Amino acid sequence: MSEIEKQPGGVLFQRLALIGIGHIGSSLARAIKRQGNLVGHLAITDLDEAARARATELGLADSVHGETADAVVDADCVILCTPIGTYRAISKAMAPHLKPDCIVSDVGSVKRAPIRDMGPNLPDTVHFVPGHPIAGTEHSGPESGFAELFDGRYWLLTPPPGTDPEAIARLRQLYEAIGAIVEEMEADYHDKVLAVTSHVPHLIAYTIVGTAVDLEQQLQNDVIRFSAGGFRDFTRIAGSNPVMWRDIFLNNREAVLEILQRFTEDLTALQRAIRWGEGQTLQDLFTRTQAIRRGVVEARQEVPPSPDKRG
Amino acid sequence: MSEIEKQPGGVLFQRLALIGIGHIGSSLARAIKRQGNLVGHLAITDLDEAARARATELGLADSVHGETADAVVDADCVILCTPIGTYRAISKAMAPHLKPDCIVSDVGSVKRAPIRDMGPNLPDTVHFVPGHPIAGTEHSGPESGFAELFDGRYWLLTPPPGTDPEAIARLRQLYEAIGAIVEEMEADYHDKVLAVTSHVPHLIAYTIVGTAVDLEQQLQNDVIRFSAGGFRDFTRIAGSNPVMWRDIFLNNREAVLEILQRFTEDLTALQRAIRWGEGQTLQDLFTRTQAIRRGVVEARQEVPPSPDKRG
Repeated sequence: MSEIEKQPGGVLFQRLALIGIGHIGSSLARAIKRQGNLVGHLAITDLDEAARARATELGLADSVHGETADAVVDADCVILCTPIGTYRAISKAMAPHLKPDCIVSDVGSVKRAPIRDMGPNLPDTVHFVPGHPIAGTEHSGPESGFAELFDGRYWLLTPPPGTDPEAIARLRQLYEAIGAIVEEMEADYHDKVLAVTSHVPHLIAYTIVGTAVDLEQQLQNDVIRFSAGGFRDFTRIAGSNPVMWRDIFLNNREAVLEILQRFTEDLTALQRAIRWGEGQTLQDLFTRTQAIRRGVVEARQEVPPSPDKRG
Repeated sequence: MSEIEKQPGGVLFQRLALIGIGHIGSSLARAIKRQGNLVGHLAITDLDEAARARATELGLADSVHGETADAVVDADCVILCTPIGTYRAISKAMAPHLKPDCIVSDVGSVKRAPIRDMGPNLPDTVHFVPGHPIAGTEHSGPESGFAELFDGRYWLLTPPPGTDPEAIARLRQLYEAIGAIVEEMEADYHDKVLAVTSHVPHLIAYTIVGTAVDLEQQLQNDVIRFSAGGFRDFTRIAGSNPVMWRDIFLNNREAVLEILQRFTEDLTALQRAIRWGEGQTLQDLFTRTQAIRRGVVEARQEVPPSPDKRG
């Protein structure tokens, strides 16, 4: 990593603006505050008045703004922490107020679409470095965040070709300072990996919980009452923010549909094996999947974020 | 609950035999030992020599047997803690050695098939009370068990019509004494509930993890490395005992195929909504599923078994 020139006062950024103060935004604010001298002034903004009031009560920032323009003015770093569907409007609204050399990033779970939606709206004088922390719980809102969320977690950056290396390095330093492991990758590849690790699993979880919603009432009551193991985990996943997830699926359509197609073929094969009593087919798959589990455990990604807010 | 006549020595059972000393069997042995005076003599047996050696080392029982007959002889309660596919052979092997009025139960995740497989092999002089604790982790083997596994968890009993109420009450008292909440239900209904809460979710988890196994190597590596949220939970589920799960699917075929059919229809509808960009359809479902999550949390089934051995 290249040596970063510190700003006056020894901080990384004189003014950092967070747009959106939900689960990730408020965790990021807390993590930055925890580290002390990273940022001279932390400004936040949120469309939702209740969220702004809550953020003020919780003392999450140095200033809380109702207008995006007021938060980003004079900022040398702006990070979008809102659902992906808002990016186009936000980038248009803030563009005239961004100062030269400002670093603009985001935390969205899809990376190709933000580059498509925001890139053309941003002035050439700013540095656009899309990002995505592989962290989060199913909880929403400013009170659900915590400073330790990113500890030991990957934070992926997907800068378009030609992005200023100094801007990437500065953002990397911020995220490393709050405990994350930063990696760079190409946006399309990111979206494919996340379709497998996150987007399709969420869609499947939503679907099976939705299937349960349609059961007759008595059966549904007992499904809730006796939910354990599998279904309980699925309800946790399916308890996530609906708008955020809607936007993820709408914006990672191709990769999600491709993995979904493969999944459906594989499920059909298993369905057939169950129908015809082909035990060996089932046992073979169930044995092969154990190797993946071991890989995940060895990659130390099995540890839930701390403090454990997961149900 | 009817008053149970205590046995000499104040114990519930003079001799209790556990067949199979894996995750559930060893947890049950530990839970019985933890309560002290429930059982006069705890006998265990397992086909696997290494498991027997481990159980002996861990001091899980008063006697450890290589032959099923030696474990069950003189027992007034026998509980099968082996994969469902073994029930037919075990019931035939032990039948001649069961003493009159012995209570025979099991812990299998499917209940209609055990009644079909075991019932005809057991002498009329014993009481057959199938059961199923809604508890367990993805771990296997005698060392993975723990005494607290059943604390506050449901233990479902599915006695066939005409079963001696005294036998049911005695088994209920055993399970309540080790911390479980005992409920009775009809076997077919049990199998339908479990198809939704456990069997289909496991099949889906196995499938998506299997889909990942078939990805090209680089992508698979990164899927493991950056697994978080959804996929990580799915690998945990898919790390479960392959033989146990093979037997569950083979023995709960009708209910699993029915729920799988509904699930596939629902998934196809969502796939279509993603393809055509129908955001409202997605958001509506994702909002409805949150109600189920709230139900699960309120039913207090969100708490993982303690100590938390889950990854």
